[in-house]
Amino acid sequence: MLENKEQSRTSLSELGEFGLIEHLTGQIKIKNKSTVKGVGDDCAVLQSKDQVVVTTDLLVEGVHFDLSYVPLKHLGYKAVMVNISDVYAMNAMAKQITVSIAVSNRFPLEAIEELYAGIYLACEKYGVDLVGGDTTSSTKGLLISITAIGEAKKEDLVYRSGANVNDLIVVSGDLGAAYLGLQVLEREKQVFQVNPNAQPELENYTYLVERQLKPEARKDIVELLKSLEVKPTAMIDISDGLSSEILHICKQSKTGCVIYEDKIPLDPQVISTCEEFNLDSTTIALSGGEDYELLFTISQKDFDKIKGNPNLTVIGYIADESQDCALTTRANEKIKLIARGWNALSEE
Amino acid sequence: MLENKEQSRTSLSELGEFGLIEHLTGQIKIKNKSTVKGVGDDCAVLQSKDQVVVTTDLLVEGVHFDLSYVPLKHLGYKAVMVNISDVYAMNAMAKQITVSIAVSNRFPLEAIEELYAGIYLACEKYGVDLVGGDTTSSTKGLLISITAIGEAKKEDLVYRSGANVNDLIVVSGDLGAAYLGLQVLEREKQVFQVNPNAQPELENYTYLVERQLKPEARKDIVELLKSLEVKPTAMIDISDGLSSEILHICKQSKTGCVIYEDKIPLDPQVISTCEEFNLDSTTIALSGGEDYELLFTISQKDFDKIKGNPNLTVIGYIADESQDCALTTRANEKIKLIARGWNALSEE
Repeated sequence: MLENKEQSRTSLSELGEFGLIEHLTGQIKIKNKSTVKGVGDDCAVLQSKDQVVVTTDLLVEGVHFDLSYVPLKHLGYKAVMVNISDVYAMNAMAKQITVSIAVSNRFPLEAIEELYAGIYLACEKYGVDLVGGDTTSSTKGLLISITAIGEAKKEDLVYRSGANVNDLIVVSGDLGAAYLGLQVLEREKQVFQVNPNAQPELENYTYLVERQLKPEARKDIVELLKSLEVKPTAMIDISDGLSSEILHICKQSKTGCVIYEDKIPLDPQVISTCEEFNLDSTTIALSGGEDYELLFTISQKDFDKIKGNPNLTVIGYIADESQDCALTTRANEKIKLIARGWNALSEE
Repeated sequence: MLENKEQSRTSLSELGEFGLIEHLTGQIKIKNKSTVKGVGDDCAVLQSKDQVVVTTDLLVEGVHFDLSYVPLKHLGYKAVMVNISDVYAMNAMAKQITVSIAVSNRFPLEAIEELYAGIYLACEKYGVDLVGGDTTSSTKGLLISITAIGEAKKEDLVYRSGANVNDLIVVSGDLGAAYLGLQVLEREKQVFQVNPNAQPELENYTYLVERQLKPEARKDIVELLKSLEVKPTAMIDISDGLSSEILHICKQSKTGCVIYEDKIPLDPQVISTCEEFNLDSTTIALSGGEDYELLFTISQKDFDKIKGNPNLTVIGYIADESQDCALTTRANEKIKLIARGWNALSEE
């Protein structure tokens, strides 16, 4: 599928490690005043009078992504999103990233340039400086390790542990689409393996595929909440599915919760594709993962400020710790929530 | 060789990702006041009134280490050293690390515990907090990505670019031993492959093997220089060999340099083992790498302060940019220095 793009092949070993780093990072222009020194010394140097947040994620070929249908530019973009999403989940602003990659020599320079084009596009769009990294060979496949650094005033930071009984549970955007996008892409891959001349049929799934391949971290929601003068009491980003994330908030806040099945925001393509795939859309939203939406709790007194905003949906409330974390179904039954999130270490 | 240690085998999938993280990080006690919040939220939270330095390194099984002779505990320790060495090279103090690992399911929990035992030992000894990370599966082998964060007052930071003409070039400790240690271990591995009953003969190489398997980052040198009231004009750590590193300093400082072959500090085991292996000890010191000593330049006026210190050796001086970077041999010949450092991307 990618053959045409690989006509020009420059071997990485022609450049050597330092040559490659210079090639990939030579054009960087620093955007943030907290970046004192970027790439080019033993360390990057940062300075902030605010608190600094740090998060890191590792993406492994064959575990987190499949290059038979993930374009490298999208992969680079998504790798940044996955990381800065965690920064926004602290109600902080992402400022710097470091990017380390391990690549087998099956990748030509042009492939790595594509990957970095996606990384730089994400940096440009989100106002983030690439300040360091490491580049090495791997014995198999591609691996990307990103560390993201952000800033927030101490009083603005939001932890997972701050939810209070009766707080409202709010989610941004809609859920389940990224997981379904993956199912669609996997199905097309299998069709392609049986018949390499088959054209992929994706027109009915454009939203799902885009959510899977090119997610956007919700910086806009952090800005929106600030403009609405709403400080969440607890927040987390939805990388492993709604169930897993609300359980993290409840565990760390020492509370229970109630989520209403009929309140969970779903895109129409999620509903129609779940029907087609014979999947339960609620299960997909609860356990699908990779949506990178923000899940947060707010005091009831802030309800009027967010009411009616199309980006935000109230899906339930925080209950006392003595109660379970429960889903109230459309049939008005209560079901205990279980984290069935995508488990990176399972052997399935 | 490690069979006995693997009698107890707990599959990683029994714990799941969150269980594993909790198991590995549940006992952490925060040591630094700049660590506001460690493991357990979307991000770690730090606060420093000083400047913050950030560095990251990726270690890949089969490229950077060979588990047939590297014990996992040593590997964990070394992975931390490799990173915090870059922090000390800025004349800063290491304060936090994040640790991400990708492991194939051939590794039982007990192996990962060994790895983390080494990581924690390094953290304990160097006063560093483990504040975050990521744990995932790999399709092949073990991979460790560490990001280290340190602090220094703005006026104390030392960059590669500050060397001035006539500054003295100083190196800590001695050079070449780590590379020779690797050669010794590789030879023993080959002996073992031919005859699995052979006992490794390492008694004549204890220093070399220790330098390879358990390097120490030179925090002590940063402290020593502070106590001597010497601020280097430029500094770098020696990970790729003396040649490569002095060329980095000269390139970024826009200078040349002269290094005296007979001044390069070598351990007696390096000299005797070079004779045995029929290697040139100067070449090994110039290109061997992995010594993690500090290479720095100082103003001539500071010479009296460091003179005679057994940890520090003056090996040359910074020359004008119009001159090359050169080695003056014992025969008083000048040879142009070339970076032949270990190249992680070469296909050799």
